Amino acid sequence: MSDLVADLLAGKHSALARVITKIENRSPGYRETVSELHQHTGHADVVGVTGSPGAGKSTLVDKVAAEYRDRGLTVGVIAIDPSSPYSGGAVLGDRIRMASNAGDMDVFFRSMSARGSLGGLSTATTDAVTALDAFGKDVIIVETVGAGQNEVDIVRTADTVAVLVPPGSGDDVQMLKAGILEIGDVFVVNKADLDGADRTVQQLREMLQGRGGGAGHHGAMAATDESAIGPDTEGDAADERWDPPIVETVANRSEGVEAFISVLEDHADYLDRTGKREQQARDRFAAEIRTLLREDANELVSGELDRHGGIESAVDAVMARETDPYTVVDEVLAPLRECLDAENAP
Amino acid sequence: MSDLVADLLAGKHSALARVITKIENRSPGYRETVSELHQHTGHADVVGVTGSPGAGKSTLVDKVAAEYRDRGLTVGVIAIDPSSPYSGGAVLGDRIRMASNAGDMDVFFRSMSARGSLGGLSTATTDAVTALDAFGKDVIIVETVGAGQNEVDIVRTADTVAVLVPPGSGDDVQMLKAGILEIGDVFVVNKADLDGADRTVQQLREMLQGRGGGAGHHGAMAATDESAIGPDTEGDAADERWDPPIVETVANRSEGVEAFISVLEDHADYLDRTGKREQQARDRFAAEIRTLLREDANELVSGELDRHGGIESAVDAVMARETDPYTVVDEVLAPLRECLDAENAP
Repeated sequence: MSDLVADLLAGKHSALARVITKIENRSPGYRETVSELHQHTGHADVVGVTGSPGAGKSTLVDKVAAEYRDRGLTVGVIAIDPSSPYSGGAVLGDRIRMASNAGDMDVFFRSMSARGSLGGLSTATTDAVTALDAFGKDVIIVETVGAGQNEVDIVRTADTVAVLVPPGSGDDVQMLKAGILEIGDVFVVNKADLDGADRTVQQLREMLQGRGGGAGHHGAMAATDESAIGPDTEGDAADERWDPPIVETVANRSEGVEAFISVLEDHADYLDRTGKREQQARDRFAAEIRTLLREDANELVSGELDRHGGIESAVDAVMARETDPYTVVDEVLAPLRECLDAENAP
Repeated sequence: MSDLVADLLAGKHSALARVITKIENRSPGYRETVSELHQHTGHADVVGVTGSPGAGKSTLVDKVAAEYRDRGLTVGVIAIDPSSPYSGGAVLGDRIRMASNAGDMDVFFRSMSARGSLGGLSTATTDAVTALDAFGKDVIIVETVGAGQNEVDIVRTADTVAVLVPPGSGDDVQMLKAGILEIGDVFVVNKADLDGADRTVQQLREMLQGRGGGAGHHGAMAATDESAIGPDTEGDAADERWDPPIVETVANRSEGVEAFISVLEDHADYLDRTGKREQQARDRFAAEIRTLLREDANELVSGELDRHGGIESAVDAVMARETDPYTVVDEVLAPLRECLDAENAP
C-alpha cells in the first residue's frame, strides 16, 4: 500500500485532498491509488444533487451538509463543473460559500472541473466518490451544475438523486424532459416562497405521473407545504415501487431542509429493503468497467492510427476522395483484428 | 458498385430512402454502401437547424425548403430525434407537416431517431448527409430537436448552423450557454411577433458580444426588424471573422424566411472565401474517423471482455471487493496490448 493511501485510510484530510487532486488531474499512478482504495468502500450513502443553474443547489447542499454534521455524521461534498466543452471556462468560480464550512473538516468540500473529456469527468467523479467512501465519510454529496446528459452521467454515481427545480415559467420543467426526470428519486422545488412555486409543483407532479409510460402504476402525489410524501410501504419489498416525492424548500432560510433529509433517509431505507442498493451498485460497476474499457481501447487504437500515418494524412486522402472514413478505420484496425483472431483461435 | 448505390446515383428517390433506412438501422452492408457513396460527395450546402423544443424549427425548415425549391434548388431534410435515452420514445411522432410536401420530391423529407447510442445517431446523421449529397441534393437541412450536447454533435455535420430561439423569459437564452451558443453561425428569433421577442434579441446580442471571451473583437450588432445584418466583409479573407447575425422570423407567416436564406448564403460565401469550408470538412472527417475508430474498438474489447468471463462475473468480483474496475480492465486488455507490442516491435 502506498503511503498516500495509508494516510487517507488513517483519516488524514490532507491525503484525501491530494488523492482527489491526483484523480482530477489523472496524474501518474491514479489508477493504482483508486484500485487500492476500492476494497475499503461500500459504506457511504451517496446523494446526487442536480438541476438547472440558479435552482439553488449550492445553498441547499450547504444546509444539508450542516444538518448532517449536526446529527454527528461526516460529510463529503464534490461539486462538479462540467463547464462548456467550448469555452473551457469554470462556471463555479470561487465558491464563496466554502467559507461557511472553512476549517470544518467533518464537511469536506471539493470542486472538480472538466480537465479532459466529459466522459473522463464522470469517471473522475466515480473515483473521487471512491476516495471519500474509503476515507469513511458517512454521506457523500455529488453536486452538478446543469441539467443535461453529462449531469445525468455524473449523478448516476449516486444512490439517491435529488433534482432541484426553481419556480418559474415552466421552461425549467420542460428541461427536465431531457433525461433528468427519469433519474430523480426526489424532486425539490427550492425557492418555494417565490411566485410560481405552486404552479411548478403542479407541473412537476403531472410530469411524474406520466413518467411510468402510461402504465398507471404511479399513485397520486398530493402537493405538500414544506413537507414530503414518502413512498408507499405496503406490499412485497422486492416489487415495491418508489414514487418520487416532491419537497418544497427555501434553502437560504433553511426551510424544508429536515424534510428533504427525511426523504433521503426514506429512499436509503427503500434501497436497502428492496435490494435495490445492491442492484444499483452492480449496474454502476458494470457501467464503469465498460467506460474504462472504452477509454483504454480508444487510447490503444489512437496509437494504431498514429502508426498508420496519423489522422492528418488520413483526412487528406478522405478529402481527395481517394478513400473514405469507414475504409480508413477498417485498415487501421485490421492488424488488431488479426492479432485477436490468432490469440483466440482454438 | 451495388445496384442500390447505382440506383441512388441515377437519381431514384426510392433508392435514397432505402439507403437511409439501411443507415438508420445499421443493416448489414451499410458501411460498404456509405464507402461507395463517399467519392460522389462534396457538392451540397449542409445547414443545421437546432434550438429548444417549441422554437418553431419544423415550420421554419418547411418554409425554407419551399423557398429553396421555388428558386430551383433541390433540398433534402433530415429531422433527427435524439429522444430520451431512457424513454426510447419518439419525440417527433408523425410529422403531419410532411403532407405539405407530399409527392414533392425536390424536397426529400426524412426523420431519423435514436435506435442505438446517441453517438451512433451522430454517425448515422453524417452517413445520411453523405447519401443526400451523393444523390445530388443542392441543399441539405439537418434539423434536431433539443439543445444539448447530443444536438451539438449532430449539427456539427453542417457547414452552417442556425440556432432558433423562441421569445421568452430569458430561460431559453440561458440554455444556450450549454454549448449551443458557440456553434451558432446564425441565430433566429422565431415567433418574433410575440411579446418578449425584443428582449430575447437583446439578451442574445449581449451573450454573443461576450462570446469572444472578452477579447473585444466582436462588432456591435444592431437589432433588426425582420432583416439581417451580414458579416463585415472588409479585411484579409483568411483572417476574416464571422459575427453571427440575429434574424427575426415569423415562420408560420413566412416572414423573415428570405432574410434568413440570405444570411445562409452570406455564410456559405464566407466559408468559401476564407477557406473555412475546407477546414470544417477536414475537422469533420477527422472527428468522424476518430468516432468510428472508437466505436469499432469498443466492439472489439467488448468481445474480449466476454472471452474473459463476461461483465457479470467481473461485477461479482468487484462487488466482493476481490478486485476493482481498473484491475478488471487491465486484465481484459493485457492480451491486446501484448499483441500490439509484438506487432509493432522493431
